Amino acid sequence: MRIGILGGGQLAKMLIESSAKFGFEFVVFSLEKNSPAGMISKEFIGDWNNPNDLNIFANLCDVISLENEYIDYKNIEHIEKSGVKCYPDSSIVKLIQDKLVQKVTLKKLNVPVADFREIDSLEDLKDAAELFGYPFVLKTRTMGYDGKGNVEIKKSSQLKSAFENLSSRGKLFAEKFIDFVKEVAIQAVRNSNGDIKIYPLVETIQKNHICYLVLSSKNYLRKYKNRAEKIAHKILNAMNYVGVMGIEMFADTKDNLIVNELAPRVHNTGHYTIEAAKCSQFENHIRAILGLPLGSTEMICNSSAMINILGEKNEIVNNNQLLKDLKNVSREEDVYIHIYGKNKISKGRKMGHITLTGDNLIRLRNKAEKIRKLIKI
Amino acid sequence: MRIGILGGGQLAKMLIESSAKFGFEFVVFSLEKNSPAGMISKEFIGDWNNPNDLNIFANLCDVISLENEYIDYKNIEHIEKSGVKCYPDSSIVKLIQDKLVQKVTLKKLNVPVADFREIDSLEDLKDAAELFGYPFVLKTRTMGYDGKGNVEIKKSSQLKSAFENLSSRGKLFAEKFIDFVKEVAIQAVRNSNGDIKIYPLVETIQKNHICYLVLSSKNYLRKYKNRAEKIAHKILNAMNYVGVMGIEMFADTKDNLIVNELAPRVHNTGHYTIEAAKCSQFENHIRAILGLPLGSTEMICNSSAMINILGEKNEIVNNNQLLKDLKNVSREEDVYIHIYGKNKISKGRKMGHITLTGDNLIRLRNKAEKIRKLIKI
Repeated sequence: MRIGILGGGQLAKMLIESSAKFGFEFVVFSLEKNSPAGMISKEFIGDWNNPNDLNIFANLCDVISLENEYIDYKNIEHIEKSGVKCYPDSSIVKLIQDKLVQKVTLKKLNVPVADFREIDSLEDLKDAAELFGYPFVLKTRTMGYDGKGNVEIKKSSQLKSAFENLSSRGKLFAEKFIDFVKEVAIQAVRNSNGDIKIYPLVETIQKNHICYLVLSSKNYLRKYKNRAEKIAHKILNAMNYVGVMGIEMFADTKDNLIVNELAPRVHNTGHYTIEAAKCSQFENHIRAILGLPLGSTEMICNSSAMINILGEKNEIVNNNQLLKDLKNVSREEDVYIHIYGKNKISKGRKMGHITLTGDNLIRLRNKAEKIRKLIKI
Repeated sequence: MRIGILGGGQLAKMLIESSAKFGFEFVVFSLEKNSPAGMISKEFIGDWNNPNDLNIFANLCDVISLENEYIDYKNIEHIEKSGVKCYPDSSIVKLIQDKLVQKVTLKKLNVPVADFREIDSLEDLKDAAELFGYPFVLKTRTMGYDGKGNVEIKKSSQLKSAFENLSSRGKLFAEKFIDFVKEVAIQAVRNSNGDIKIYPLVETIQKNHICYLVLSSKNYLRKYKNRAEKIAHKILNAMNYVGVMGIEMFADTKDNLIVNELAPRVHNTGHYTIEAAKCSQFENHIRAILGLPLGSTEMICNSSAMINILGEKNEIVNNNQLLKDLKNVSREEDVYIHIYGKNKISKGRKMGHITLTGDNLIRLRNKAEKIRKLIKI
């Protein structure tokens, strides 16, 4: 039995770390050599857009999953035609990778989303400005992540340049600005029997539009819990989804929950589940795609804070320095460090993360920020 | 940074599973392709007795450890001469791999061991019979494991055949028979700073001389605890040991603890620490050889039972059947299955293990035996 993963980054790596114990083989389809996941799996180097490479990869695998949603759904269709199942399947990836289609789908399901409209011209954008008022948000329909492909438009003089800049990245849509008090996220997992399990709702804190801190606690965000879980159930069931899905939401000033974005995969906001939940999002994703019963998504500690190690400079990782830093961090109890094994540091690049478990969420958050500073990356 | 492991079996695999998160690379030196650990690491195929292969492997690694003590210590010396550090080092492996030298060393340290004597001839064996009385045990000095290389001599008529049979395997020694009430074991870990941490003392139950069940509980075996820990401290400090050591002991009818055997590596009786301890024996071994502070060896549950999946037939693993079996086992909460990924089942071969965590040790043991039967291996 061989499990294939499209992508060889840290998400693929943690999927393998969590489930190598089941004894199956993993092969990752990576665009370049020495990927994080390739360190602990067979690594197939190829081009996702080359049908021949897709065929070779599919031939190596009994079942395939993915660690990012930027591979064109047509490539996943191509793999499916060869008879190998992909989770999530091409129809789901198609729906999610076009954020406009994603919003339309969610709206049809009566899942709360921000008002939006398609933007094909500067005229459309001017209409949107009138409709939504300032500020509002212009986004690319595909390939947006970590703040790339998004722009907040604050006044009419920005309309033209925003339209021209983003148009070069592809088709666009506009969204009403949500005046949120918190950004929250939830991971949900569904297997082919239709069983669903849901991890606790967490708060996410961004730095330059990149996930930076994730806070979770058994009794935190209780007023949103039921609604968030209902939303997750509705989305996963409607899509007949198999695997873990990350759902990002805004909580606005009136305590409404508004879905911002779906990720058809394990998600940065669920890394804390490795140490803080009975069964991690990574193991549950593998369980789901293998048709195994799902593990418990319960937290095994009261609270947890996860901080990303985002690169602060552009240089090659110094392993001796890293080992020294690991010595400092490993001295601490209930502190768990993950280094992804990327050779090159660049500003804002996700190089690793640190999870802390304990009782007091505020103290954990403060400690997380202190401990992050011990790593010279 | 690349960590080398001599051997590519399940112990190497679990070392990598535990510590891939630190971001370093692993390479295993395996005698044949498709080793369990090779599934999640670079795999170097070679012959431990070929100096050229040892040189190539050493060149690939920044630090080296081992997963079995049957590699001739001279080969480890050869690696050390190339400037790469091995943990444990060749002098420790030399001392441990000759069980007679091991016993002499322990006796010098005033660690309780069974009476023993060197056997070079049938005359020596007859003398030993007179000295120890029947039954007593004849053993090979090297390469004995899982009951191989051991024979219990019950009467004088067996002396000649026992001597002749075992002599063909190498040099011999004889040991007084210990009338034990329990077999127990302890894992201890020491890093290069001299810090020592010790896991709980566990009971081990053998089946045909192969470890079968391991029982651990916070308050179990309390009367032996202090003595076992003192023994562990004494041995690790005296050897200036770095890494995890497994120490097997007998508890006799008078509640004495008698050391039976040392294993200079992570040990089957410590597999339960993956789920039942804060930091597993595997992660702590890697921490020790990297010079990191040691993790906590505390149990995070009250009790745990670990049962080995020993092959019950000689055949190739059927992956579809295995997946079905995994479905049945994964349905259970607080049950953790590990399959090593070996292709061929043979009778008594260690194919995987299952750990259960919970409160009541007797119930866990019974459940472990029931769950083992769900796996058709």
